[in-house]
Amino acid sequence: MREEYQAFRTMLERRGVLRGAAMLGAGAAILSPLPALAASSQSAAIRKAAEAGKEASVKRLRDWIALPSIAAENRNMAEGAAYMADLARDAGFTNVEIVPTDGHPGVFGTIDVGAKRTLGIYFMYDVKQFDPAEWSSPPLEGRMVDKPGFGLSMVGRGAVNQKGPEAAFLAALHAIRAAKATLPVNIVLICEGEEEIGSPHFRQVATKPNVLAALKKCEGIFIPFPSQDQTGAVDVNLGSKGIIELELVASGEKWGRGPKGDVHSSLKAMVDSPAWRLVQALQTLVTPDGNKPAIEGWFENVRPLTEREKSLIRAAAAAGDEAEQKKALGVTHWINNLSYDDALIRLAQEPTVNIEGLVAGYTGPGGKTVLPGRAVAKLDLRLVPNQTRAEAEKKLRAHLDKHGFTDVEVNVSGGYDPTEVAEDSMLIRTELATYKKLGVPAHINARLAGSWPGATFTAPPVSIAAGHFGIGHGAGAHAPNEYYLIDSTNPKVAGLVDATMGFAEFLYTLAAMK
Amino acid sequence: MREEYQAFRTMLERRGVLRGAAMLGAGAAILSPLPALAASSQSAAIRKAAEAGKEASVKRLRDWIALPSIAAENRNMAEGAAYMADLARDAGFTNVEIVPTDGHPGVFGTIDVGAKRTLGIYFMYDVKQFDPAEWSSPPLEGRMVDKPGFGLSMVGRGAVNQKGPEAAFLAALHAIRAAKATLPVNIVLICEGEEEIGSPHFRQVATKPNVLAALKKCEGIFIPFPSQDQTGAVDVNLGSKGIIELELVASGEKWGRGPKGDVHSSLKAMVDSPAWRLVQALQTLVTPDGNKPAIEGWFENVRPLTEREKSLIRAAAAAGDEAEQKKALGVTHWINNLSYDDALIRLAQEPTVNIEGLVAGYTGPGGKTVLPGRAVAKLDLRLVPNQTRAEAEKKLRAHLDKHGFTDVEVNVSGGYDPTEVAEDSMLIRTELATYKKLGVPAHINARLAGSWPGATFTAPPVSIAAGHFGIGHGAGAHAPNEYYLIDSTNPKVAGLVDATMGFAEFLYTLAAMK
Repeated sequence: MREEYQAFRTMLERRGVLRGAAMLGAGAAILSPLPALAASSQSAAIRKAAEAGKEASVKRLRDWIALPSIAAENRNMAEGAAYMADLARDAGFTNVEIVPTDGHPGVFGTIDVGAKRTLGIYFMYDVKQFDPAEWSSPPLEGRMVDKPGFGLSMVGRGAVNQKGPEAAFLAALHAIRAAKATLPVNIVLICEGEEEIGSPHFRQVATKPNVLAALKKCEGIFIPFPSQDQTGAVDVNLGSKGIIELELVASGEKWGRGPKGDVHSSLKAMVDSPAWRLVQALQTLVTPDGNKPAIEGWFENVRPLTEREKSLIRAAAAAGDEAEQKKALGVTHWINNLSYDDALIRLAQEPTVNIEGLVAGYTGPGGKTVLPGRAVAKLDLRLVPNQTRAEAEKKLRAHLDKHGFTDVEVNVSGGYDPTEVAEDSMLIRTELATYKKLGVPAHINARLAGSWPGATFTAPPVSIAAGHFGIGHGAGAHAPNEYYLIDSTNPKVAGLVDATMGFAEFLYTLAAMK
Repeated sequence: MREEYQAFRTMLERRGVLRGAAMLGAGAAILSPLPALAASSQSAAIRKAAEAGKEASVKRLRDWIALPSIAAENRNMAEGAAYMADLARDAGFTNVEIVPTDGHPGVFGTIDVGAKRTLGIYFMYDVKQFDPAEWSSPPLEGRMVDKPGFGLSMVGRGAVNQKGPEAAFLAALHAIRAAKATLPVNIVLICEGEEEIGSPHFRQVATKPNVLAALKKCEGIFIPFPSQDQTGAVDVNLGSKGIIELELVASGEKWGRGPKGDVHSSLKAMVDSPAWRLVQALQTLVTPDGNKPAIEGWFENVRPLTEREKSLIRAAAAAGDEAEQKKALGVTHWINNLSYDDALIRLAQEPTVNIEGLVAGYTGPGGKTVLPGRAVAKLDLRLVPNQTRAEAEKKLRAHLDKHGFTDVEVNVSGGYDPTEVAEDSMLIRTELATYKKLGVPAHINARLAGSWPGATFTAPPVSIAAGHFGIGHGAGAHAPNEYYLIDSTNPKVAGLVDATMGFAEFLYTLAAMK
């Protein structure tokens, strides 16, 4: 899930890691002090319009936060899609349509100015669930709160994930129009309302014939993303690992041995144990050190990193602070006692089988003499190019069956294929060129070890470059007190108006790219 | 823990298993229809006194329930010990003393009537924690509620575990005194307030010189126990398995590898996983089918069942309803597809390593992309004669160390040695003779697969027979709506007055034993 990346960022920020780029598998750094935003031909007028439109932008974001669409709770989904469509129309999109799916609807619209190039923009209009009791200000009110080291920020569910940066992108379109400037590229907007539940029907939106036709014309697509940390630096990702999230379940019910429910633990002497069954099935999935998948055929389609990718990572390792990262993570040794650069190469290179959680029987304080009828391991399996989710699911099932665990259930809750974007693609070149113009230090990540649903775009039939772009800052995705920076007090980090200008800059840069 | 047996009974009753004796490892049945209570020499007068004293007995129980002593919460411990001492004095015990320990105090008292024989009685004055919100009548009020199939019962925390049957025993002493009958045996009373937390200091009470000297004079000791199920049948246990309850903990903290806390799961590619470490350590503890301990030297001191024990179990199997038991437990096959009698023999014979629970990382609904810094398996290890808890703890540690898991913590929360009582001991012979006089069908359990703290008495330096005795009924130990039967409407099951008479009968039977 895409938000996963945002959540990871938040975690690193909380742990006080200034720059997590290297940790994500990063590369060459274009380091320079942050100057004023770059001047494009029409930028003065657009900036003036962006400043003038700031209050309207802030209100637009606040009103949007007040309408939380939550797919997991089936809350405000039709309302959220209609609101998204209105936001798109207000920003100048035409032919805006609500696209029904087997789940909740998507939204699609275009701005065709007859430009040579077309840019795709991906929005999510849904937000993560929240518990108001955990928040220090009401999650739907969008109150302004000072965040030390950054500045005045709007607090609310969805503020950073993803309404704030999306609102900044819309603000750029409003500002360009208000400045009577010429929009330099055509824009295709595709939105979904199920991102937080793993985008189960998004492919239906993207492959609707008129949507697909529009997407295929795009030079690439990005999700507006507030990429800056407190040093002002940003990441440019050349792809990400895929993921399968699943529960492995051993139960007396399916096994036909052991109890169907929990029974008294003394019965272990005459009754089989689904919890032991789970342990035995689990331990076949990895090497004895727990570090390498041992599922049959798992590495068949794994593409080794290229020398270029490795050199990007080595450069990131050289620029990174290994001691600080170890401290932040509470880790004293990397796997196999690898050196830092080898560990970062392994981070990008290797598929993983990770235990997210174990749940069986009695889980409270102390003990309770039960023999559980059911045991669950929550796993995530990270995939690398050219593995696919479909292939991996099939191989996992075949592996368990071959080892005699036909009864052990594999309940997949979601996942994505890995994604790759060429370093020389128009999208990445434009991102780098824009950041350079903006004076923002950008790190190239050879591969994000986390995962996002970009494969919907990068895989056939859409087959376009996809990534994240944006300056600005926010944090707290999926957590209480999520926020998005509005008025920056940090000279290296963009507030709302500068973030707006960053998106405008991208559009003009794209139009001018060779 | 002793209450463990009570909880097991409750579970079986809830599942509608009429008779769990065979399941506990049972033997020969003395089946006969339940007549009126047997007539001993002075029984008519004692019964009259017991009837007359019934309201006082009920009030005594209700008042006691109103004062819950809970060691885990350090609630009413001094008050509970003082109250226990008052109850003992009121029932005729002299030299009653509160016995300090390093934890909460015990209570000790004697009634010396110069009789030839002395009986030990073990009380617990503490009760299990409770949440009033889960109860359908207030847990400290002792309200009378009709329990279909049994009759009017007092509902309250501690009603069956163990204040109800203890109050019935005290009522027998009151009735004998009120009837001006001669108490036929001397009585030694030893009480603790930490039974529900695993009796950590009870040995200090039992080995205090004057207490030890008194205990050593006893023919045996029992805890008053409402043994009857709805058929009226009771169990007589010739011993029980021991138990060690523990948590096996793998953590980055202790391991020096992996993270100290939870980190983002994408890091699995470069960071070791304590959850995988736990899985690998666990799977060394048992055979691949999960059914036999594989800890080095585990079977060195295991005494095989005798032919007599096996024949008792085979008789129980013949009398048991295998299909009904499988249904009640939700089990379709016993371990290794054993026959019913072989499964019951295995139940009594084999030590076990059971997973009570698994807890690591994210345990809520769905998934969360974390790599947990800590993983816990809650285990109970059942021990059989002549294993000891000390030996087993040492061997478990040595096994883990030998397999390289020196970092995996073994946190023992409690446990008991196994216990054994000779079938021809005065205690068991008296139990059987009393039940026979009472016309109560009694099953001899060769070995209880559950566990109780009887080893305090059966092991040196006390070295006396120990068991459970009593008619009557109750259920819900450790659960909401715990109850103890007062006015029976089931002709096969004793209410309070008959349970009182059952204890009186035991005293006279013991005095008359050859």
